[in-house]
Amino acid sequence: MRVEIWSDIACPWCYIGKVRFEKGLAEFAHRDQVEVVHRSFELEPGRAKGKTEQVIDVLVAKYGRTREEAAAMVADVAANAQAEGLGYRSEGQETGSTFDIHRLLHLAKARGRQDELLTLAYRANFAEERSVFDEDVLLALAAEAGLDADEARAVLADPEAYADEVRADEREASELGANAVPFFVLDRRYGISGGQPSEVFVQALEQAWKDRPVTTLATVGGDAAACGPDGACEVPKG
Amino acid sequence: MRVEIWSDIACPWCYIGKVRFEKGLAEFAHRDQVEVVHRSFELEPGRAKGKTEQVIDVLVAKYGRTREEAAAMVADVAANAQAEGLGYRSEGQETGSTFDIHRLLHLAKARGRQDELLTLAYRANFAEERSVFDEDVLLALAAEAGLDADEARAVLADPEAYADEVRADEREASELGANAVPFFVLDRRYGISGGQPSEVFVQALEQAWKDRPVTTLATVGGDAAACGPDGACEVPKG
Repeated sequence: MRVEIWSDIACPWCYIGKVRFEKGLAEFAHRDQVEVVHRSFELEPGRAKGKTEQVIDVLVAKYGRTREEAAAMVADVAANAQAEGLGYRSEGQETGSTFDIHRLLHLAKARGRQDELLTLAYRANFAEERSVFDEDVLLALAAEAGLDADEARAVLADPEAYADEVRADEREASELGANAVPFFVLDRRYGISGGQPSEVFVQALEQAWKDRPVTTLATVGGDAAACGPDGACEVPKG
Repeated sequence: MRVEIWSDIACPWCYIGKVRFEKGLAEFAHRDQVEVVHRSFELEPGRAKGKTEQVIDVLVAKYGRTREEAAAMVADVAANAQAEGLGYRSEGQETGSTFDIHRLLHLAKARGRQDELLTLAYRANFAEERSVFDEDVLLALAAEAGLDADEARAVLADPEAYADEVRADEREASELGANAVPFFVLDRRYGISGGQPSEVFVQALEQAWKDRPVTTLATVGGDAAACGPDGACEVPKG
């Protein structure tokens, strides 16, 4: 079974939802047969690279909250994170373009280190005093995740490296009807939106497992040379 | 789109079919949006580790061919390989248990080096005078594919490392009705058996692309906290 998770590093409910999903997955009997893939989603795809702002200021200026309301929202998220055992820094948190982080996460995917880098990037952004919008921080995170430092640097230096992969993920999110994150897709059959309680993930995994369709493949091409366990490698006689 | 290819290192039509598929893929307009995954399939799942035999002897003893027929079969495969630009050694080729190679290919998958290792293993087995049934050769191939040597050694030393992943692939092949390899599955909707000409792969890719279903996901779970591009991170009011 395959679970795809669309998320953004700048999204606190993605940070929390990832851990809630993992707790649900840990309780799922067939967890060894679940493959998890992280997919890119930018909350602000138009944001210019390098332009960062304080999260509190964005909540006030862009979404019309009072400073008190904004602080209460952050405190609510922090309480939810802490209830899951996650660190959460209460102030100084920035937001900015996450495009480069997503490109780097695609390199990490290609190198089998995607979950490692994503976990470190979330922690840096939400729990530590490190800006994921700073290239030196990103390079340090890449190295901590086990990526080759030169390869990570080359990806960050080339704005088109893995850019198509980020855009393809975002196009797929749109095709699947996802307009907010985190968004979890099980075997392209079930969708789960938001940082749900872990029980919801357990239930969804069990449901998707039980309902696994018996796949009947349409056949393309005629007979062709193949090797089978019950005979040598046969070439069909035309 | 996702293409899964079930194959065995000991299967010459898998070696040839891989290259024919890649030629077809290279002609496919949406090739950048195709993800290829290699899956395990043992032609002889019961074969004891370490017990190798000459391929010609197996064709004679197990499949009742005369020595001349067996030599003609090998020559036919060699001609097909060479027509695709692949090397093929005409004699001395061994067969044996491929379970450890498949386990190592799963490590390579986890590290983003699966295609590299598979390509090298095929070449060693079919074109070079190297036995992929020899642990030292496997370790050398792993290093050439960019894997960490210590990690590869640890996997080979532990017979259960990635063993479940090999068996899960084989179970899925059976569920999908594959009883010979290579077996290509496009988006779990189309199946292509055997080392087909590359045009068949182009046609299959185009068909699967055109027929991509509009996925409608069933929803699991109620409203939950999420972040959307058109607002802050909202917690639904219960």
